[in-house]
Amino acid sequence: MATEFEIKPYPELWASLDMDVPRFDKARLMLGEAYAKTYLSQKKRPVGMAYFDNMIAEIHGGRIKELLAAKAEGRPVIGTFCVYIPEEIVLAAGGICVGLCGGSQGSVPDAEKILPRNICPMVKSAFGFKAGRICPYFQAVDFVYGETTCDAKKKTWEILDTMVPTYVMEIPQLKRQRDLDLWLAEVKDFKTKVEEVAGKTITETDLAAAVKIMNNKRKALQRLNSLRHHNPAPISGKDGLLIEQIAFYDEPVRFTKKVNALCDELEERIKAGVAVPTKNAIRVMVAGTPMALPNWKIHNLVEGAGAVIVNEESCIGTRYFKDLIDENATTMDNMLVALTDRYKEIDCSCFTPNDERITQVIKEFRDSKAQGIINYSLQFCHTYNIEEIRIRQACEREKIPYLFIESDYSAEDVGQLQTRIEAFLEQIGE
Amino acid sequence: MATEFEIKPYPELWASLDMDVPRFDKARLMLGEAYAKTYLSQKKRPVGMAYFDNMIAEIHGGRIKELLAAKAEGRPVIGTFCVYIPEEIVLAAGGICVGLCGGSQGSVPDAEKILPRNICPMVKSAFGFKAGRICPYFQAVDFVYGETTCDAKKKTWEILDTMVPTYVMEIPQLKRQRDLDLWLAEVKDFKTKVEEVAGKTITETDLAAAVKIMNNKRKALQRLNSLRHHNPAPISGKDGLLIEQIAFYDEPVRFTKKVNALCDELEERIKAGVAVPTKNAIRVMVAGTPMALPNWKIHNLVEGAGAVIVNEESCIGTRYFKDLIDENATTMDNMLVALTDRYKEIDCSCFTPNDERITQVIKEFRDSKAQGIINYSLQFCHTYNIEEIRIRQACEREKIPYLFIESDYSAEDVGQLQTRIEAFLEQIGE
Ligand code: SF4
Ligand code: SF4
Ligand code: SF4
Ligand code: SF4
Repeated sequence: MATEFEIKPYPELWASLDMDVPRFDKARLMLGEAYAKTYLSQKKRPVGMAYFDNMIAEIHGGRIKELLAAKAEGRPVIGTFCVYIPEEIVLAAGGICVGLCGGSQGSVPDAEKILPRNICPMVKSAFGFKAGRICPYFQAVDFVYGETTCDAKKKTWEILDTMVPTYVMEIPQLKRQRDLDLWLAEVKDFKTKVEEVAGKTITETDLAAAVKIMNNKRKALQRLNSLRHHNPAPISGKDGLLIEQIAFYDEPVRFTKKVNALCDELEERIKAGVAVPTKNAIRVMVAGTPMALPNWKIHNLVEGAGAVIVNEESCIGTRYFKDLIDENATTMDNMLVALTDRYKEIDCSCFTPNDERITQVIKEFRDSKAQGIINYSLQFCHTYNIEEIRIRQACEREKIPYLFIESDYSAEDVGQLQTRIEAFLEQIGE
Repeated sequence: MATEFEIKPYPELWASLDMDVPRFDKARLMLGEAYAKTYLSQKKRPVGMAYFDNMIAEIHGGRIKELLAAKAEGRPVIGTFCVYIPEEIVLAAGGICVGLCGGSQGSVPDAEKILPRNICPMVKSAFGFKAGRICPYFQAVDFVYGETTCDAKKKTWEILDTMVPTYVMEIPQLKRQRDLDLWLAEVKDFKTKVEEVAGKTITETDLAAAVKIMNNKRKALQRLNSLRHHNPAPISGKDGLLIEQIAFYDEPVRFTKKVNALCDELEERIKAGVAVPTKNAIRVMVAGTPMALPNWKIHNLVEGAGAVIVNEESCIGTRYFKDLIDENATTMDNMLVALTDRYKEIDCSCFTPNDERITQVIKEFRDSKAQGIINYSLQFCHTYNIEEIRIRQACEREKIPYLFIESDYSAEDVGQLQTRIEAFLEQIGE
């Protein structure tokens, strides 16, 4: 079944990027196998998923070539780790933004040779990709833009900077006027930096076009999300998650078109009454920390147990696309204010207090017609782990079935998680 | 030996503070025992330590009564968790500042009923003291002032606020002009809040007097620290640490006088050639996270092995007192700028980058005539744990014997730490 899937090898390209080619090639085979098992084994997948399957097949080649072609034209290619970094500015300068968060256990041991073990696997995985030279995206970027959202990332940038030029955007920790003023100044600095590397000044027209592109991408993802909210769901949570993950490295205009085409197909399915996986599958919403590619652990377990995930309240999901930028601003200053106004709506747990997220979780639960919430936190993520207390209290108050999972990227806890998830689904089904 | 030491019980006082009296009384006995064993067993202690012994004997009564008396007069009593909170402002309003960082394993299980286990023991211990109603200081304060220095604290304040009024000062994460502007605004807000509770406006005279009191306290602690740098050391590291811990809850003018009196005695000792513990003890400097009362774990192990600790590069040590406030500013605005300028010199790992701390660690190593550095990080403290990499690299560069210890408050790792510390001292002694 689906064994013919292959992530395409590009050994010469990788060698030209100073990668550890033999090791990376092994990782490629493992990822291909995991993908076939997790994704291609699904039944009744929408035809439109073929594009995204191909994005995975070309993840280490096709898209990298596009990045290098852009660089050859002098267009900046910038790596990021957080949805607070405004992609519009990179796009406006003709550049490419690529998410570098790590979702793989494979690079964690590389990181642990240098970083403490007691930090979040996303940070370790990303750092390990660079330290081990086993990620072509990390090798292709002009520089990376970190931020100060969490302790683990903030301090890791200092070490990462010895391996790849690392700039840092300060994200404040509260959202009063004085914080927004500082934030706006940071956005302006980011613009200056990107212009420097691009060797061009961003005009109002450039930025307006970029805002439109990103708003359209967000609208397409919102549309997909709404369709997932239909009962029964016309697409699996695994496929929904995959598309959200690909959003962080695909070309935005093409991606938007493909997501919209898929949405057309999903609308047809809904009309035709085609449900994935089954009509009476239990509907679960996931909240919490993002799931970077190829972290499919929770979705795999939940859908493996016959349920369906209908919403991701996280930065891989709604936090990335729920808010649009006001397109009516005209002067550069006003446009940057409008941009910052949109970014401040992102309700990451790194802010204090973060009441709006508690409200948002409950809202998304209702909107998605879910029957329970799995709150997921990466291990050692202090902010999400502590905010868990407030999410749990809100679920108790609202009588929403609730399960909290703290996990890393290893396979060690899979058996235990499976048991807990099955018990949770049973409790909902009663 | 020294079994007659007792921490004085005040059951009625405790009951009036709504404490869990039976449980707290047990904790009192255990602390008294630990104190006798750790402190009173030392030989050749300076006579001037009697005052500090008594401060411990009265920790749960005498000093609490002083706090309550102040409150009865309408003077605010404010709990803090970080040396970035400007005590001068509380003093200037006639109030009392008391450090509430937790240094005891005893309250950790209370915290772990609510908070995640994977966070720093200092935060858990402090939170547990409140949750379990087993700290008279927590019960006596008007409110607590948290800050945004680390993820664990920042998010814990939201939960703590449900038990005791908790205000938060935003501490920026970089130190550029825009960060200092925000910081100054935060300091002004703090002043407003303290004035509100005190029911009085702080005048320039009030603030000038408070700055003097705090500068004098810092100078006394600097003097003590310089005397510890004498070779051989005239006082144990354990006693040095104890005084630094008491600095966070004692009345500052009295405390300063007593520290200076002790320093006079230490100068006499140096002249007389009295060394503690032995003339050729190996000299160790500790760097890293603060050690809140009664966390004497590392000092106990190091000095138990015959070495002496001569410097604490941490917020319990030099980071608390190394910088003075310029006393020449006159208008309130300028005084607050001068104050903020001093506070920004504190080189906590929560800042990025934090190069000045790396330089400072090496400087203190030289100044203290230490022979090796033990870098100590509380478990799960991301910022100090990651900054460890840079401290280690600096020590390698400077060929400074170096040991890194990550530990919590439990006794579980004591055996293993003892072995590692003894091996480290042996390596230095070779
Ligand atoms: S969870 Fe927070 S830190 Fe992580 S990507 Fe989202 S906004 Fe950024
Ligand atoms: S999951 Fe948490 S610890 Fe990890 S990078 Fe995001 S905010 Fe930081
Ligand atoms: S180590 Fe940092 S957060 Fe802790 S008390 Fe010191 S300055 Fe504050
Ligand atoms: S030791 Fe680290 S984690 Fe603990 S309170 Fe201080 S800065 Fe926060």
